[in-house]
Amino acid sequence: MSSHPFAETPEPPYVAVIFTSVRTPGDNGYAVMSASMDALAREQPGFLGIESAREGVGITVSYWADQAAARGWKQVAAHLVAQRRGRDVWYADYRVRVATVEREYGPESSSLDGEH
Amino acid sequence: MSSHPFAETPEPPYVAVIFTSVRTPGDNGYAVMSASMDALAREQPGFLGIESAREGVGITVSYWADQAAARGWKQVAAHLVAQRRGRDVWYADYRVRVATVEREYGPESSSLDGEH
Repeated sequence: MSSHPFAETPEPPYVAVIFTSVRTPGDNGYAVMSASMDALAREQPGFLGIESAREGVGITVSYWADQAAARGWKQVAAHLVAQRRGRDVWYADYRVRVATVEREYGPESSSLDGEH
Repeated sequence: MSSHPFAETPEPPYVAVIFTSVRTPGDNGYAVMSASMDALAREQPGFLGIESAREGVGITVSYWADQAAARGWKQVAAHLVAQRRGRDVWYADYRVRVATVEREYGPESSSLDGEH
């Protein structure tokens, strides 16, 4: 994870994969897997950035150039997780939502104060 | 925030507002504002759910029935934040991304193992 907290994404449209999860108790190899997944994601074609936080629930949003890039990552990630039989070991539950980002704002966008 | 960690969203399409932020030091009324924003969001037309975690960076994803509902919330939230002059006090930096969710998966979707 870079020291910059936000993904530096281009002008929309691009694709966001919102991965929300609840962990199982214990590490069970999760920390190592998570770091290697992160590193692997950054090597994929079409990778734009990733943002992640865990506080009870974990939310990881990865950003991709297009739907094909997001699908490519899904296949790589699924293969890796299947190899390690990790899904049921690491996650009590999860949701994945694939979305097309249409607008992006920051503090410089005067029209956008606090879309919380 | 309900005890269930995931927003219970309907079949896509629907709209996700991804709010990523870095806080300023100190509370400065943030905790009270955040709780009241959360309660207010739940009362808005078209509100579907919200997921939130902070770990260095904060990620809050709110889900809305359509773009009009997301825009309505933006106006309500902007007004509230402006009233309290909170944006610069609470946030060192932030990004808002508005996206249309096209696909959603969970553990029951056999084709989707570990889209991390």
